[in-house]
Amino acid sequence: MNYKLIGKILSFILFIEIGLLVPPLLISAVSGDTNVTFSFLKTIALLAAAGGLLYILTRKSTPRMYAKEALVTTGLSWIIMSFFGCLPFVFSGVIPHLADAFFEVASGFTTTGASILSSVEDLPRALLFWHSFSHWIGGMGVLVFLMAILPLSNTGNGYTLRILRAESPGPVVGKLTPKMSSTAQILYLIYFGLTMLDAVLLKCGGLSWFDAFCLAFGTAATGGFGVVNDSFMSYSPYIINVTTVFMFIFSINFSLYYLLLMKQFKAFFKDEEKRLFLIIVGASIALITWNILGMYSSWNEALRHAAFQVATVTSTSGFASADFDQWPAFSKTILLCLMCMGACAGSTGGGFKVSRILLLMRNAKRNIKQYQHPQGVEVIKMNGQRIDEQTIASTNVYLSVYVAIAIASLLVISLDGFSTETNISAVIACLNNIGPGFAAVGPTANYAGYSVLSKIILSFDMLLGRLEILPILVLFVPRTWKKHS
Amino acid sequence: MNYKLIGKILSFILFIEIGLLVPPLLISAVSGDTNVTFSFLKTIALLAAAGGLLYILTRKSTPRMYAKEALVTTGLSWIIMSFFGCLPFVFSGVIPHLADAFFEVASGFTTTGASILSSVEDLPRALLFWHSFSHWIGGMGVLVFLMAILPLSNTGNGYTLRILRAESPGPVVGKLTPKMSSTAQILYLIYFGLTMLDAVLLKCGGLSWFDAFCLAFGTAATGGFGVVNDSFMSYSPYIINVTTVFMFIFSINFSLYYLLLMKQFKAFFKDEEKRLFLIIVGASIALITWNILGMYSSWNEALRHAAFQVATVTSTSGFASADFDQWPAFSKTILLCLMCMGACAGSTGGGFKVSRILLLMRNAKRNIKQYQHPQGVEVIKMNGQRIDEQTIASTNVYLSVYVAIAIASLLVISLDGFSTETNISAVIACLNNIGPGFAAVGPTANYAGYSVLSKIILSFDMLLGRLEILPILVLFVPRTWKKHS
Repeated sequence: MNYKLIGKILSFILFIEIGLLVPPLLISAVSGDTNVTFSFLKTIALLAAAGGLLYILTRKSTPRMYAKEALVTTGLSWIIMSFFGCLPFVFSGVIPHLADAFFEVASGFTTTGASILSSVEDLPRALLFWHSFSHWIGGMGVLVFLMAILPLSNTGNGYTLRILRAESPGPVVGKLTPKMSSTAQILYLIYFGLTMLDAVLLKCGGLSWFDAFCLAFGTAATGGFGVVNDSFMSYSPYIINVTTVFMFIFSINFSLYYLLLMKQFKAFFKDEEKRLFLIIVGASIALITWNILGMYSSWNEALRHAAFQVATVTSTSGFASADFDQWPAFSKTILLCLMCMGACAGSTGGGFKVSRILLLMRNAKRNIKQYQHPQGVEVIKMNGQRIDEQTIASTNVYLSVYVAIAIASLLVISLDGFSTETNISAVIACLNNIGPGFAAVGPTANYAGYSVLSKIILSFDMLLGRLEILPILVLFVPRTWKKHS
Repeated sequence: MNYKLIGKILSFILFIEIGLLVPPLLISAVSGDTNVTFSFLKTIALLAAAGGLLYILTRKSTPRMYAKEALVTTGLSWIIMSFFGCLPFVFSGVIPHLADAFFEVASGFTTTGASILSSVEDLPRALLFWHSFSHWIGGMGVLVFLMAILPLSNTGNGYTLRILRAESPGPVVGKLTPKMSSTAQILYLIYFGLTMLDAVLLKCGGLSWFDAFCLAFGTAATGGFGVVNDSFMSYSPYIINVTTVFMFIFSINFSLYYLLLMKQFKAFFKDEEKRLFLIIVGASIALITWNILGMYSSWNEALRHAAFQVATVTSTSGFASADFDQWPAFSKTILLCLMCMGACAGSTGGGFKVSRILLLMRNAKRNIKQYQHPQGVEVIKMNGQRIDEQTIASTNVYLSVYVAIAIASLLVISLDGFSTETNISAVIACLNNIGPGFAAVGPTANYAGYSVLSKIILSFDMLLGRLEILPILVLFVPRTWKKHS
């Protein structure tokens, strides 16, 4: 394993995190909160020291990178970023316990939006900004950002493609342009542009620029952190509808927007994953609207809440415009299933991903056909392109490992004595980067009641979910750390 | 598709069912309950008419049978058997609604043990016997029985192997002897012998012969129907311990007992599925005993209840020696996970099967290794034998279809408005042929509250679980019924 190269990339990550801490630092300076300002400065000093030392030790690395190095780099980057990112909360005393602060910031970076805070309104302004900004950073991925800006990527496409694959969601990661750094730049530009548009539209709805940007960060990243305690429950129908639309926009593969920019409308409309996603979403909204109609004064209002909640759960954002924990069992079950499904690959949304479901469905269909006609051989296609058997095998393995992790997490957190419904929804909400679950972790509650052990397990579930298991899992496989392999 | 052959086999099944109805008919005659006697006679008359007509129409069939025919025959046999089997309950007015009676008898044949009855003690004796006897019939499978006794099996091994595969649980079904009919006979003899032994030991514990046999039927088939309303809660420690041991015995692959009879002790002890099963069971008993210690007066009592409940859930029997719905969340979560796992392949137990878990674990491990060293190629072995890629692919598909069926069932039954915990455990308990779940379908409650639609869905979940999906699933695939395929 090329430890030096891993160390060098990690040192860049630490330097980038310094840059990312500058906006909240400035906000704290402007609002005159010296305690918070100092906690940011202390964190920056630690980052500079750690990053500098790491860079000096590893600057003479060879640029040789295999799949293993890419996975380990990605996994470690996210753990280290979450660790340093939570220090301002700890130093300022706002979240005194490290496990709580790590949970909160891992929840931010992984765009989960699960919180241990009972009142987000009490956060100092700079920390509130950092809280929401962490979503935006994690949404697209900081390594993708590194690929977009650094000369590192000149050493070859294979290199950056591996990093991009490890950090980007979905079973198949394609290149938009022959050069990977251009692909990363295009993705970031789309992300940036759509976030700006969302913020401006929210500002038009009467929010302050601060609130508009914080909410746009949470929406773009499909994160879920808000700026008031009741999430979206007190906002106007306009704000709720704008956010619904943008949550759906950010749930769809970003490369489709590139197709739109390139005027390849036919390829845009033909995309099978998007089609299935829209069918499922449409059916879910219709069924839930029908199911909750009696709870609201008009079908208009029921539709608005149904659409918002379906958007927030499929995009894995985790906002709430209504306390859906009070909805009938049928609606809650639909939401629970959508939580597991998640968004499209190549979006900022989490979950199992619609394309994986599509692949597994087609594979199951092929398998059943083969039982009936053992002599037939068939290939599986998506968007007209053949999917190789390795991808199908990996998707199958993904499902089994996903189920295994969910069961193991469930067993550990059930030690804390919460109800089965709470525990199952907590694991699903963290592993799929959603945020709130049902019952004791429902949209009006929080995760503070869990033990330190459970918070650590759930934090790792968020990281496993965001990075789609492998980059975190390999860190725990002893063979990864063997000298000659 | 060879409709005539399918019809002919189905007519044999109907004739066999007449034979199986004779013991309860005699019991009803002896106990002088003319209403029940007439309901059995009416059912037998209908079976004879239907079977006779079917046989006349199909007697000139060709013995050509492919995989598709085997699947369809198996699926239809079980549905038809459950339909006719529930008629005595309907005719006698004991369970007036057909959907309820079908649920109850499908639950019997599939060895699930879920019930809509609030008081099993109120059943007439003959119907109580038929209730438990249906478990025993379904445990080994009636088609396996047909293979064991009928000259049909002389037409070739491929033929019967296909049927045996379709009806027997587990990813790999082997032949014990070169001749399939002998394999079926050996399996039935082991099943018969162990059931007798269990009944005698229960009789020694002070039960009547009637109760001893009914409970032995339920235990051998890992079914779960009892003869008193509180299942095992009022029985002596001796009865509980004997049943615990026998539930574990019936959870293990029967071919291992054949190895014992053949004095192949080494192969018996080496079996990897059994080893993993015993490790998981041992660990679960230890953890639950520790977790519930405070609720019982001695560790001895806690251990007895922990062992019984682990046995009843892994074997997918579904008896209860204690109201485990009242146990702490950790113990309930362990039980929920064991419910999904189930027993070993080739036993009478249901669930996902330990060998499937073993296969998926090894496949996941191989896949992760391949990420780290893409050039390596590895085969997966079980008990030293290479598992072909087709079996691994099928096991993966099994998991995805299994999850899809569970989610679809959950959505439909959630319309009835029960809690998420009730619904999830109901689907898991039916799909894995366990019986009781938690909360409103817990060990002291029953399934009567669900709507007709939900009862039908849950009945089909039981059939899907018992036949391991494919034989029932193909019945709903339009392509199965196309003329030239």
